[in-house]
Amino acid sequence: MPGGHTQTLRPFLWRASKLYPDTEIVSRDHDGISRTTYSEYAGRTAQLANALDDHGIEHEDRVATFCWNTERHYETYFGVPSMGAQLHTINPLLPDEHVRYIVDNADDELIFVDPSLAEKLAGAAEGAEEFDGVDFVVMGDEGVEALDAPDYESFLDGHDTEYDWPDLPSDQPAGMCYTSGTTGKPKGVEYTQSMLWSHTMTTLTPQGIPMEDDDVVMPVVPMFHVNAWGMPFTATAAGSKHVYPGPSPDPEDIAMLIEEEGVTVTAGVPTVWLGLMEYCEDNEVDLSSLDRIIVGGSAAPKSMIRWFDNRGVEVLHAWGMTEMSPIGSVSQLKSDLEDAGYETQLDKRGKQGIMVPGIEYKIIDENDEEIAWDGEEFGELHVRGPTITKEYFERPEANEEDFEDGWLKTGDVVSVDPDGYIQIVDRAKDVIKSGGEWISSVELENAIMAHDDVSEATVVGVPHEKWQERPVAFVVPAERADRDTLEEGIMELLRDEYPKWWLPDAIEYIEEVPKTATGKFSKKDLREQYSGDRLLAGNTPDEAAPGQDD
Amino acid sequence: MPGGHTQTLRPFLWRASKLYPDTEIVSRDHDGISRTTYSEYAGRTAQLANALDDHGIEHEDRVATFCWNTERHYETYFGVPSMGAQLHTINPLLPDEHVRYIVDNADDELIFVDPSLAEKLAGAAEGAEEFDGVDFVVMGDEGVEALDAPDYESFLDGHDTEYDWPDLPSDQPAGMCYTSGTTGKPKGVEYTQSMLWSHTMTTLTPQGIPMEDDDVVMPVVPMFHVNAWGMPFTATAAGSKHVYPGPSPDPEDIAMLIEEEGVTVTAGVPTVWLGLMEYCEDNEVDLSSLDRIIVGGSAAPKSMIRWFDNRGVEVLHAWGMTEMSPIGSVSQLKSDLEDAGYETQLDKRGKQGIMVPGIEYKIIDENDEEIAWDGEEFGELHVRGPTITKEYFERPEANEEDFEDGWLKTGDVVSVDPDGYIQIVDRAKDVIKSGGEWISSVELENAIMAHDDVSEATVVGVPHEKWQERPVAFVVPAERADRDTLEEGIMELLRDEYPKWWLPDAIEYIEEVPKTATGKFSKKDLREQYSGDRLLAGNTPDEAAPGQDD
Repeated sequence: MPGGHTQTLRPFLWRASKLYPDTEIVSRDHDGISRTTYSEYAGRTAQLANALDDHGIEHEDRVATFCWNTERHYETYFGVPSMGAQLHTINPLLPDEHVRYIVDNADDELIFVDPSLAEKLAGAAEGAEEFDGVDFVVMGDEGVEALDAPDYESFLDGHDTEYDWPDLPSDQPAGMCYTSGTTGKPKGVEYTQSMLWSHTMTTLTPQGIPMEDDDVVMPVVPMFHVNAWGMPFTATAAGSKHVYPGPSPDPEDIAMLIEEEGVTVTAGVPTVWLGLMEYCEDNEVDLSSLDRIIVGGSAAPKSMIRWFDNRGVEVLHAWGMTEMSPIGSVSQLKSDLEDAGYETQLDKRGKQGIMVPGIEYKIIDENDEEIAWDGEEFGELHVRGPTITKEYFERPEANEEDFEDGWLKTGDVVSVDPDGYIQIVDRAKDVIKSGGEWISSVELENAIMAHDDVSEATVVGVPHEKWQERPVAFVVPAERADRDTLEEGIMELLRDEYPKWWLPDAIEYIEEVPKTATGKFSKKDLREQYSGDRLLAGNTPDEAAPGQDD
Repeated sequence: MPGGHTQTLRPFLWRASKLYPDTEIVSRDHDGISRTTYSEYAGRTAQLANALDDHGIEHEDRVATFCWNTERHYETYFGVPSMGAQLHTINPLLPDEHVRYIVDNADDELIFVDPSLAEKLAGAAEGAEEFDGVDFVVMGDEGVEALDAPDYESFLDGHDTEYDWPDLPSDQPAGMCYTSGTTGKPKGVEYTQSMLWSHTMTTLTPQGIPMEDDDVVMPVVPMFHVNAWGMPFTATAAGSKHVYPGPSPDPEDIAMLIEEEGVTVTAGVPTVWLGLMEYCEDNEVDLSSLDRIIVGGSAAPKSMIRWFDNRGVEVLHAWGMTEMSPIGSVSQLKSDLEDAGYETQLDKRGKQGIMVPGIEYKIIDENDEEIAWDGEEFGELHVRGPTITKEYFERPEANEEDFEDGWLKTGDVVSVDPDGYIQIVDRAKDVIKSGGEWISSVELENAIMAHDDVSEATVVGVPHEKWQERPVAFVVPAERADRDTLEEGIMELLRDEYPKWWLPDAIEYIEEVPKTATGKFSKKDLREQYSGDRLLAGNTPDEAAPGQDD
């Protein structure tokens, strides 16, 4: 059968160690900054593989990490998958019962744990049969008694710095990460060697997040979070210098690392950069080395993009999912927008962007039709490509829900403009289905929160006998608000901007919006409470369906 | 089994037509310049696929082209493989018997032929049973009677401009090209969908030949020659504008297209650029749009690199093989060479470069050992990666010779410097094996041709009973040369530069170096003639082996 050699991570490690033996890997850890080089890194990675062999780890066994962003964690990124095992990065912020479920579901053989997380992991493991047979190694130079765990340096010590990296098939499982769903059990996503190879390539293109050998790459996004968006792999393929910010870096640490290590590209959620902005306002920070910041997880406010633009730093939105290895789209500016005004550019850059080459996407409306690329209509984003998983690990019922004819149904509701930029409008489970059309809960929320006398607001769809669902707004009034006139004030605001059938059937005052463990609005609680307590009555307008008033 | 969606060409066509519907594809053809857009192109490509369906072409059938670089040829690049068939690009410069062999061996169903090549193809096909059952379509708007061939426009006419592109497996054969070996029958190389996807990705990286949506890409390298180095695919993935220079473009055509279409990146063999340089010296040509020229096939002389540098155009060496889809290495300058002097940079850029990410390479000497990366030692270059074929089409005996443990033995003898840049020193079949070590015939040839009184020279290894082989030089003296003193003059020159055991055992004057059909030195003839005619005698020094005098 014709074909090329398999696609694996091996050539990236090989390339960096042969072509850039002296390029540095810098790591902030509990005891300060450490430095190594690709050449030493390759040796330690080989030691790790030999140590895993000795420990009895075999091909397709799962080896987990419970760690921050450090150089040692990066050693597992190549050492584990390239010796034939599967690297399972566990989110140490998960509640204990999730950790137990995940370790059991993945059947992990061994867990590398950061010293600062050993106590938490020991707590989760104590007396839990899910942990039966699991061994531990502590990512430091001291073991931990509670886990009966040797330290990583002893684990490596004495092992050969050469390893005969095997020739693995493309479909060999190489990585694994669980989605932290707000409902139900976490779902495991496996990354094959080929998916990680492909992701490295699609993101390395100029249309993705290109890196070169003079880049200094600092992933602030956690390495337990979908391979830190693949950056440790991409930076290695490019021969870039790495900087790992270690456990709980605060803005001062981040500023220091940018300044002292000459970071050119970094990545993380908006909160991190808001913290850095604030720190920079109060302290003298030299950001001159910094070229671009990759922002994902949630949208960067335009004010943030402006702030960094003024300092010569490009903020690039990226959007992706655990199921996508993870990067799908990047908000690179198309060349025909180069002459557009700054505000137009900002509008585009504020969106989630365009899929990298090799990924196809379509947006499907309530009636299973593709929507127009007009920036107005919206529907659920479906994606397919070699970096996107075809299934969840041992979850056939979830597969049926989330995959269709080779496409992943992302659960994100988006619009797409004529230039191809997608913008997330809502989550599919939160979008309100009224009379066969969709209403964006997020748009209504933002509009309501723009009212001066509103402190917080969320909009949920509640069941309705005629229209299927209708929007109800839950509003936390500001302290100064006049609760008697506020409702009408909000409705007035909304009437100006939206068709009648978008207007909420009711506005309810609450003292606080319920939140999930990760701080997101928990609409589920409100929806259940509202539909359980009361049924919607005559408040609904007759024209609570589209096409009747616009 | 875990894994991502298959890797195919489809997303690239989709991406360009959706994101860049108005970007142009410009084509010089027999009747002048034509223009179309990605949007129209996608429609015509769908028409082609529908027409092929109607013609009875099925999955894995082979559809061939016998064409120049035109927009219509580019339509077959996506239309044929994306409907499930296999695109076989035939080199129309091959002798008739090779064409007959290739068409028969590939079992082509249909051949698209350029009007200017119809007569040649009809000649090759006439009365040849290898062409039994093969149909023809002429790439123009007039049919050709000798081939009983309709014209391409009629072939497409009336077909739907939409096509439901199938979901193909990664290992589906998508392309095919024959190596034009100097000895033996041409060998077929098949490209799977995955190989072409992977090649598009590895070359799109900053370490390869990155392209963006404001690039204007003109492949002068023929589209029958390993997919024009993959550029039609890469340019599509990037959404670049395409310019196809059509049949036999001369320097004036090339200069005109660069000027009028704003070409930013172009590619071809050195001869093309030497022609352009000459034309530019005699005519006013505006090269200001041109950013980079990709040079392959043979090495660009440093004088050419300098000439273009002076005009703000970067000459980038690329090296590859038919077996590699084809690009392996590119001579991108590493960032730590940015502060090196211009001459040092020129030395690096004059080499064949560094493999793109995802490809591994090693250099193996006569004793099957990896050589040092010191820029001095040399050995045969072995490569492996997802863009490199694992076998020839139906040629098990050739497979045994050229593939080993997953590596392709390239047949190129190279040195590699500490920075990882390879430099081709010789072909493995031409390198002279003397006393267990290798002597580069190319180096000796270049040294001899540096003598003022030498017009041409070639050096071949001839059998030797003690040393296995010894070098013999065949020299065409310049007209002014004194043939009595020339031999000693050459030997003196060589003694200064090379160890004694490198020196030729004999220098023979000839009137002309025999050439192959493609203009390369045919050493085979000389080798046979010399070893047949005469045996080497006492001329060989006792120290005709390494390690005895250096």
